Amino acid sequence: MNAEILSIGDELLIGQVVNTNASYLGEQLSLLGVTVRKVTAVGDRMDDLMDAFARAWQDNDIIITTGGLGPTHDDITREAVCRFFDTGLVENTSVLADIERLLAERKRPLSASNRDQAMVPASADIIRNGSGTAPGYHFHRDGKHLFVTPGVPYEMHGMMENYILPRLREGFTRARASLTVLTTGIAESTLADALRGIETLRPTCSVAYLPAPIGVRVRLTAVAEDHETAQRHLEELRTFISERAEEFVYGRDHETLEQNLGALLTARGQSVAVAESCTGGLITDRITNVPGSSLWFERGVVCYSNESKTALLGVDPSTIAAYGAVSRQTAEQLAEGIRRTAGTTFGISTTGIAGPGGGSAEKPVGLVWIGISSDAGTSAFEFYFGDDRIRTKQRAAQAALDLLRRALLQLPLSPTTPRPTQ
Amino acid sequence: MNAEILSIGDELLIGQVVNTNASYLGEQLSLLGVTVRKVTAVGDRMDDLMDAFARAWQDNDIIITTGGLGPTHDDITREAVCRFFDTGLVENTSVLADIERLLAERKRPLSASNRDQAMVPASADIIRNGSGTAPGYHFHRDGKHLFVTPGVPYEMHGMMENYILPRLREGFTRARASLTVLTTGIAESTLADALRGIETLRPTCSVAYLPAPIGVRVRLTAVAEDHETAQRHLEELRTFISERAEEFVYGRDHETLEQNLGALLTARGQSVAVAESCTGGLITDRITNVPGSSLWFERGVVCYSNESKTALLGVDPSTIAAYGAVSRQTAEQLAEGIRRTAGTTFGISTTGIAGPGGGSAEKPVGLVWIGISSDAGTSAFEFYFGDDRIRTKQRAAQAALDLLRRALLQLPLSPTTPRPTQ
Repeated sequence: MNAEILSIGDELLIGQVVNTNASYLGEQLSLLGVTVRKVTAVGDRMDDLMDAFARAWQDNDIIITTGGLGPTHDDITREAVCRFFDTGLVENTSVLADIERLLAERKRPLSASNRDQAMVPASADIIRNGSGTAPGYHFHRDGKHLFVTPGVPYEMHGMMENYILPRLREGFTRARASLTVLTTGIAESTLADALRGIETLRPTCSVAYLPAPIGVRVRLTAVAEDHETAQRHLEELRTFISERAEEFVYGRDHETLEQNLGALLTARGQSVAVAESCTGGLITDRITNVPGSSLWFERGVVCYSNESKTALLGVDPSTIAAYGAVSRQTAEQLAEGIRRTAGTTFGISTTGIAGPGGGSAEKPVGLVWIGISSDAGTSAFEFYFGDDRIRTKQRAAQAALDLLRRALLQLPLSPTTPRPTQ
Repeated sequence: MNAEILSIGDELLIGQVVNTNASYLGEQLSLLGVTVRKVTAVGDRMDDLMDAFARAWQDNDIIITTGGLGPTHDDITREAVCRFFDTGLVENTSVLADIERLLAERKRPLSASNRDQAMVPASADIIRNGSGTAPGYHFHRDGKHLFVTPGVPYEMHGMMENYILPRLREGFTRARASLTVLTTGIAESTLADALRGIETLRPTCSVAYLPAPIGVRVRLTAVAEDHETAQRHLEELRTFISERAEEFVYGRDHETLEQNLGALLTARGQSVAVAESCTGGLITDRITNVPGSSLWFERGVVCYSNESKTALLGVDPSTIAAYGAVSRQTAEQLAEGIRRTAGTTFGISTTGIAGPGGGSAEKPVGLVWIGISSDAGTSAFEFYFGDDRIRTKQRAAQAALDLLRRALLQLPLSPTTPRPTQ
């Protein structure tokens, strides 16, 4: 089964919107065993849409479109799909009822353009929208399927979960499985060297390295006669990685480092508090994205000024005067101070020069000290994250969370192989 | 001039990576006046790559590819492009020198796979890579151009800035201009109603509404005989929007609310501090993404526990006992407390129920109180942001920053039309 994802909207071509819908759809289809052969994005132009429909319909069994179903005049997907399937519009009373109910809940009036959204292609099945006014459409002919969905991510997600995926699940047997091993603290080429030979372990498995500022992901894909075999092959590869690079592996698939830290801390009844200077709240933002984090996260302090480091965390002003705010000594006092004032098991801290200003020959932009404190003691480590402000924040936040992971798992706090420099 | 962006890599099809490269390229090309007609993503399969090259080369003047140039075995873009243009590989000594220099700087050895990256297509010009080991290629035939770049975003960005954009800039005359007006605090349909008639003001201009959790963007595009005329038309539309929805407009194009707040505060010599409960550090993360924010941002406190609200910000425990941590009274004391302890001009605060747990009939998941304090007084406002934890954090952070914008500009602190509910 081959599929194409067809994303519609000028905003995708001029770079105004990042196509996260395509990632979501790609993942959902792949998990089902459908091979996504192509993602195409075209603008709100009739000629380009018709051409894209024709090519996609010719090459694939399944097409999912997103976008262009809104109530404003620039949305032409409905008209295009009607032309493509040579069908007209009819009013659908259950769609109209859905729209009326949704607007009533939100205390908004039914506008003419909302009412027009109840006009749907006559030859399509309707995909109900649980959280917006635009219905989706399902065309099926000659064993092929075209699903038309809105571009608003959560509206499209609802249609996938409630309608499209259940229909696609009927009748898949081929076994395909994939697994992504998440690493941090090791460069792509160093990791690839450590894992040399993995690509020949199982010829039907594929291995890909996906580098990003917060770490390198290793994607493993297996195709086999049945699900158990595919899973067993993946497990062999995963074990191979564990044996060679265990200390750098913090999770799998869509796990996040902060989720896994939360699970570890919750299981032990332990807690953490965070003192952030250069990361500016990014660490606690990530922590508080985890549902239930209030069980193990007590507080954070974003101590951007020297005064706040002293007033809130007890950093000795003479330490800052002698060694600077970006120093091992300050990082250690921050970690110790937040742990003491919050009364948590662990305290972690960051202090660095995110740039673009503030660097010197001795302390260049990108230098970050990261501290950790527990009743086992307090220590801090030096990192050089480069000259991009946002990437430095991202890398420092990841390194600080990884330091906590290493402490929790009693791994060496400083990696045993060279740290990544890119 | 038509262009296609061709993104290469299995990770894009299975949803493991979001295609931010395509957004960047789409924006850069559009700003130049090139019409991006399509974005295509295909996997690391030779057949699909050859087919995509053939279609893109037939339909377009300019093609930019990203991805598949890495040192690992799953990268086949170089082989594919050599087949497509029927050319072989030659070692390029200046590329080899670049790779050696880069690795030496990072104190890493030259591996065999790195050395292989100095083998380049014989009939291509080379695009040097300032921050990675994979060079790019430039093929030009029959007035058409194919640029091949790596998938690592900042490596590709460097090639665009230093090589591709300067070459494309030679010889563009057609005038196309676009402008995006950024709004927040107003629903798409309410905004569209307020702006009714804008699409007929200038028939050669187009208007598109792009909704997102933090606000609705209005994209205006003009095509005209010269740049001045296109700009004048855009300005007419922008004025139309200002007249009808001024209080909701916080910026344009890629400005962020936090950048604009920073400019306002810096110009006035004023400052802000932030007390966050439900937003968990997201507000200060956004603030500290702005270079130079240490001039106007003093500190933040992520007061997740009730104890931290009291200990760090002086919230009266009896207030929490009587009204709850999520209440007007607590939000006001948080805003007032952070302003007082930090000694800043403004204090802003959030306290709410991000979910999924913790809701009740009286205080459902999604309820957020947002406070603001200055020497003009302290007040707090109630919002309902829905049942998605991450979106609630995003919306609450945006609403808190917008409250500060309204205070700085002496706008009504509470919008004069209904708030968005989706």
